[in-house]
Amino acid sequence: MLNKLVFQSDFGLVDGAVSAMKGISYGVCPDLVISDLTHDIPAFNVWEASYRLHQTVKFWPENTVFVSVVDPGVGSKRKSVVAKLKGNKYVVTPDNGTLTHLFITGEIVELREIDETINRLEGSENMHTFHGRDVYAYTGARLASNVIDFEGVGELLPLDEVVLLEVEEPIVSEDQVTGSIDILDIRFGSLWTNISSELFFESGFQFGDKLNVRIIYKDRVLYNNYVTFGKSFSEVNIGEAIVYVNSLNYIALAINQGNFSRAYNIETGLNWLIDFRKVK
Amino acid sequence: MLNKLVFQSDFGLVDGAVSAMKGISYGVCPDLVISDLTHDIPAFNVWEASYRLHQTVKFWPENTVFVSVVDPGVGSKRKSVVAKLKGNKYVVTPDNGTLTHLFITGEIVELREIDETINRLEGSENMHTFHGRDVYAYTGARLASNVIDFEGVGELLPLDEVVLLEVEEPIVSEDQVTGSIDILDIRFGSLWTNISSELFFESGFQFGDKLNVRIIYKDRVLYNNYVTFGKSFSEVNIGEAIVYVNSLNYIALAINQGNFSRAYNIETGLNWLIDFRKVK
Amino acid sequence: MLNKLVFQSDFGLVDGAVSAMKGISYGVCPDLVISDLTHDIPAFNVWEASYRLHQTVKFWPENTVFVSVVDPGVGSKRKSVVAKLKGNKYVVTPDNGTLTHLFITGEIVELREIDETINRLEGSENMHTFHGRDVYAYTGARLASNVIDFEGVGELLPLDEVVLLEVEEPIVSEDQVTGSIDILDIRFGSLWTNISSELFFESGFQFGDKLNVRIIYKDRVLYNNYVTFGKSFSEVNIGEAIVYVNSLNYIALAINQGNFSRAYNIETGLNWLIDFRKVK
Repeated sequence: MLNKLVFQSDFGLVDGAVSAMKGISYGVCPDLVISDLTHDIPAFNVWEASYRLHQTVKFWPENTVFVSVVDPGVGSKRKSVVAKLKGNKYVVTPDNGTLTHLFITGEIVELREIDETINRLEGSENMHTFHGRDVYAYTGARLASNVIDFEGVGELLPLDEVVLLEVEEPIVSEDQVTGSIDILDIRFGSLWTNISSELFFESGFQFGDKLNVRIIYKDRVLYNNYVTFGKSFSEVNIGEAIVYVNSLNYIALAINQGNFSRAYNIETGLNWLIDFRKVK
Repeated sequence: MLNKLVFQSDFGLVDGAVSAMKGISYGVCPDLVISDLTHDIPAFNVWEASYRLHQTVKFWPENTVFVSVVDPGVGSKRKSVVAKLKGNKYVVTPDNGTLTHLFITGEIVELREIDETINRLEGSENMHTFHGRDVYAYTGARLASNVIDFEGVGELLPLDEVVLLEVEEPIVSEDQVTGSIDILDIRFGSLWTNISSELFFESGFQFGDKLNVRIIYKDRVLYNNYVTFGKSFSEVNIGEAIVYVNSLNYIALAINQGNFSRAYNIETGLNWLIDFRKVK
Repeated sequence: MLNKLVFQSDFGLVDGAVSAMKGISYGVCPDLVISDLTHDIPAFNVWEASYRLHQTVKFWPENTVFVSVVDPGVGSKRKSVVAKLKGNKYVVTPDNGTLTHLFITGEIVELREIDETINRLEGSENMHTFHGRDVYAYTGARLASNVIDFEGVGELLPLDEVVLLEVEEPIVSEDQVTGSIDILDIRFGSLWTNISSELFFESGFQFGDKLNVRIIYKDRVLYNNYVTFGKSFSEVNIGEAIVYVNSLNYIALAINQGNFSRAYNIETGLNWLIDFRKVK
């Protein structure tokens, strides 16, 4: 049986770039089933590419092949790799930090460098600006359609050589957990933190608690308020803030039917700290 | 043969939410054929979700399963249902008004409540914020791939208990029809009214007529002009307004190669009245 | 084996129009494989529709059927046609200039007019505003699923009667090439010219050259600077401009990890001239 081939990029869907990658893939094997994760990763934003894979791969079946092309270093010495994940899933990507979240959550089991003398679209040797089409889509399609197996990608790389972006762990102190705002649930403006629900519950927080929530950007406190930790949005009023467990089992902050990020101009990254304290 | 599975939501395509729903679906059955209606329903806009289904389902073949997730009440007591339509099509959705247009046009023949003790992704029992993935996509995939039949969804509900949004009927008086602006043909800014072409012709309007068109918002007249009722845009000049029959057989108003909504700041909803009068 | 059916339009993905076209297609043949080129062609922009086909069709396998619906003249006397390309690919489109780039690059081998007495969705005879669904999608689906062959489309048209948009050829003089800015690589703001890399190299330009680049709009010089002609973005600093060969083998101008179009307010079209001169 053929495996699924899932594309992600920062190309947008406004021109022909994504369609060229799909055409090449069907050229490798006409029976492939192709799907899109997203092509709206902000241009060159490797962090978001990494996060969106982390958010999604676990929901796809065994043997799915993901091709992620956010590639600011196209044509440079950055390596082109395929990571094998637990559950026999694969990610084809430039090795530029895109594998960060999958690595730190222990999902990656092996890494191979793409041998471009074999796994590169014929006739593309003199093209230096669209490896997404000529190398990544082509290799992903060959892997998904079993033209090559994982060994056929190229040589093994030591796992600890994978390129990682800087990340930070949440800090637990008495009656308090401090983390950072990893990413937005963009459409709804909710803040997704790097604090797992597991850590949160272990630290003594419980559904129904009233929490003091603060958001701090470079020593400036931008939000400081009391918010209920609820199971679902319906436990608070429309327009009221809520702390909840998001669909990836991390702690998140939203306004019920509103947009928290826009309401308070909150952005994402390691400089955006959020802390939760129990009110006694 | 497998049936088509068609997704609609207000999630946008900028993150991994839609892809997670598709991954879950392929996990239910790898041979499913999945398509998208739209994921750009404005956040929480149940009316538009209802209209887009109304606009689209009739063009899909028998046995197609639609999954619509615009779900501001996720986690509340709102029911999760599957509507069976004429022609053996199905809509999986929260029962929050999303079925309004299909109900009032007589398309719905039976309604069942999803039994979440059976039709819910294993291991998701403690997730309260993404029923689109854990309940709706999962149930839709099971139905489309014949893992369950319609009876397997859960108990029958009385059809007249379906949750409906407020709608109004057009009013016919002598030489005049008054309706409301239901929705925009967004890309082109055309206004789609709730007046069927059948009613319009019955009221004595004919192609070629010159009509007095008025648009009224809360007693303020925002547009008052004379417009030709034409068969196709090419019957008027570029930049000229035209009354026409849209692709759903309702009366609509556009500027040929322009944007009527933007030109006159016209929006949609029951407060936006439009009337057409014959010029003698 | 079934062929691929690829859609392009200016409808956007925010409403049900594209999904209606796909539903009709699956109604013709449930086993079709459907993909999207883009639906974000700017409204009524036939030039971009033509360019995006030019950019994409070559990467799709033999027998692929493209349906392109940018149709400002819907309902007028403009013809509905199918172009047969080299490699047995097909483009179903209104004959309004959408075939310009494929024609001038010699890709089109035959042209037929769609016989709407045969190739039109049953019951749509009185619909005059959505030929994308009723004629183009329907005909494309019939062709892709071998319900009709190319002869079944309708009568042959003389190739030289195809409707063409105005185009200009680049001009080569001593140590200088002047062309126009055809289109943007939208997400990254790079300028794609109408100068082929072949012509550029023949004119004596070489990788590594430092070039004087000027952009002129209606006699106003909007950019005049010295830029390296590099193989890949990594040869210049982040934020530095670069002349390069794009993924279609044309000469292009970008800022590495920046947005050239936005930085200098550069747009596209025959009035936007760009010239490259060797620095001695």
